[in-house]
Amino acid sequence: MPDLTGEAEIALRRYRSETLQYAPLLGLAPLREWICNYLQVDGVKVSPEQIIIVNGAKHGLDLICRLLLDPGDCVAVTAPTYFTGIPIIRSYGVEFIEVPQDEEGMSVDTLHHQIERRKRENRPAPKLIYDIPDFHNPTGITMSKRRRLQLVELAASLGVAIVEDSPYREIRFTGAQVPSLKSLDTNDSVFQLGTFSKLMAPGLRIGWIAATQENIERIGRLKSDGGTCPLTQRIIYEYCAAGKLASHLDLVRKRYQEHRDTMIASLTSFTPKMRFKAPDGGYYIWARLPREMDSNLFAKQALARGVELFSGEQFFVGKFADYPVNSAAGSGYVRLSFSFASPAQIEAGIARLMDLLPNDRAVSRDKM
Amino acid sequence: MPDLTGEAEIALRRYRSETLQYAPLLGLAPLREWICNYLQVDGVKVSPEQIIIVNGAKHGLDLICRLLLDPGDCVAVTAPTYFTGIPIIRSYGVEFIEVPQDEEGMSVDTLHHQIERRKRENRPAPKLIYDIPDFHNPTGITMSKRRRLQLVELAASLGVAIVEDSPYREIRFTGAQVPSLKSLDTNDSVFQLGTFSKLMAPGLRIGWIAATQENIERIGRLKSDGGTCPLTQRIIYEYCAAGKLASHLDLVRKRYQEHRDTMIASLTSFTPKMRFKAPDGGYYIWARLPREMDSNLFAKQALARGVELFSGEQFFVGKFADYPVNSAAGSGYVRLSFSFASPAQIEAGIARLMDLLPNDRAVSRDKM
Repeated sequence: MPDLTGEAEIALRRYRSETLQYAPLLGLAPLREWICNYLQVDGVKVSPEQIIIVNGAKHGLDLICRLLLDPGDCVAVTAPTYFTGIPIIRSYGVEFIEVPQDEEGMSVDTLHHQIERRKRENRPAPKLIYDIPDFHNPTGITMSKRRRLQLVELAASLGVAIVEDSPYREIRFTGAQVPSLKSLDTNDSVFQLGTFSKLMAPGLRIGWIAATQENIERIGRLKSDGGTCPLTQRIIYEYCAAGKLASHLDLVRKRYQEHRDTMIASLTSFTPKMRFKAPDGGYYIWARLPREMDSNLFAKQALARGVELFSGEQFFVGKFADYPVNSAAGSGYVRLSFSFASPAQIEAGIARLMDLLPNDRAVSRDKM
Repeated sequence: MPDLTGEAEIALRRYRSETLQYAPLLGLAPLREWICNYLQVDGVKVSPEQIIIVNGAKHGLDLICRLLLDPGDCVAVTAPTYFTGIPIIRSYGVEFIEVPQDEEGMSVDTLHHQIERRKRENRPAPKLIYDIPDFHNPTGITMSKRRRLQLVELAASLGVAIVEDSPYREIRFTGAQVPSLKSLDTNDSVFQLGTFSKLMAPGLRIGWIAATQENIERIGRLKSDGGTCPLTQRIIYEYCAAGKLASHLDLVRKRYQEHRDTMIASLTSFTPKMRFKAPDGGYYIWARLPREMDSNLFAKQALARGVELFSGEQFFVGKFADYPVNSAAGSGYVRLSFSFASPAQIEAGIARLMDLLPNDRAVSRDKM
């Protein structure tokens, strides 16, 4: 966690009238400019007017849903997808389309076929497509450039919006960065969600949306909170403007890579029957249990041993029982997080899972 | 504006892992306990489980609407009412009932008649009644105890919720405090909204809702923002727990009373044709222009002279043109705010309004 005491003192002394008064509805101007520059460096063509500050990325997703969705609309998500996103989207009374993923990310061909079939059945195309293309939550998959291009083209051709939720993009340990959907978007289809939660600290509750100026202004009118906290915005701006974010991120990447490597080594030596693909970044490993195991029961038994992990069930929009057993969209997976626990805790935690796995049978040869 | 640098240092040094990590969804436990005690002192029977921390009172109103309202529902508000509340409520696709006010506050008899008439017409009763009973925005009126009892009884008998928006309650200069609606509520009808914006500083964006535990938990599930900023919550808690709020409020009351008195003196000497009733507290004076004047034009002309005031039009849910001219719910009023400007600015500002008012006719004898 970064030391923000100096920034807080600057914010509360030098900028007291700014930080303790109502803030501009779209966010503090210097912070919007800083984010704009940060996104430009990442290849996104954007101006400060195309950015709104929100109370974390979840709040951003909620506002985009409020802008775009009406009851009865349809939203496409990967199966599995970010579990906190599901109830936010669902609260708008929409229908979901679930799209499978492979190692290149969301299967855009499948999505296209689903939309074509719906068209033949006189059912509407999705109004928006939600995805986490970098180090996907929970699968850890990063979408290939080819697939990204395909997705933005499909969205453009159908006039569908894309929400690119991008909290982990900077947390890459290995491999080369892939262009963001927003940077590939030539049709203003993409709403990109960013957050300081994963860059600096989750408690700060400051994120942003990058979209067209018109949509940003419309979102501003939907933001009923009287402006996001200017004190936190100023603290973050002072930290970033002082150039501290880059070295902090270096440290975060180094730490989390150690965590990931420890988790991979522990899984390999203690629980070889759990199958996974090592992610190039992010927070999560999506691990498959041996065929006969129930992930809900496994998560419960793990918790009883002091190990917190999430059953795969929570990452699907439908009822778990409705999915074919051991299908890609089915049971048998758990999400392991390596971000919070220390390497020693990770090693001890994975070791404790050993007892829960069968040790008297041949190692399952199922592929991910 | 209070000096919060010491509190920020405590929050970011001693409580770093709390303030920079995700916060409990319903708010930091010590702050909820502090608020609970604060409300108990004000006569409200409440436990910490019946309080949720939100991102300012507007966010609280939005969450209550999200909990209670469906499209086609009906909401009762005073005419005029708080203008920022209108679009928040309206965004839920509801119909409004406008209820007039007299010097005792909302006319509960009229509301009752309106509901009875709707019943005869097979139209639904309101799902909620929204009001600001203390130093009403914009009228400055404080509801009498008799009227409050009548309102909570009516709500209880019909099973209607009340939103008691109470940002100005502590800003009383003269007269005795009247029991809050929440303290008079024996039927769990009242959702009480509080905020640190008016107690400490608007930029902090921290408010709360007090309601039943069941409703607080349901609201928590609707709160999509990943928890309200724990850093700001901790800063506020440290400030309040150190006993600094009471002396700060004494100062605020003293200052704002000077502001109010200056505004009253200036209006009396410079613009005797503007009629008003001096409020006992709060931020606002609701002033009536002479009969023939248009408040929109007046506000525009005032702004051109560097004086910011709000035309009454913005405080009504309907189209201004639909109201009878000079009716209580009609044109001809402006809202003057004495909270932000200094006494010298207030005096100079009111003096500049002189030119805009007729000086060649007899003083209007209209009553408020």
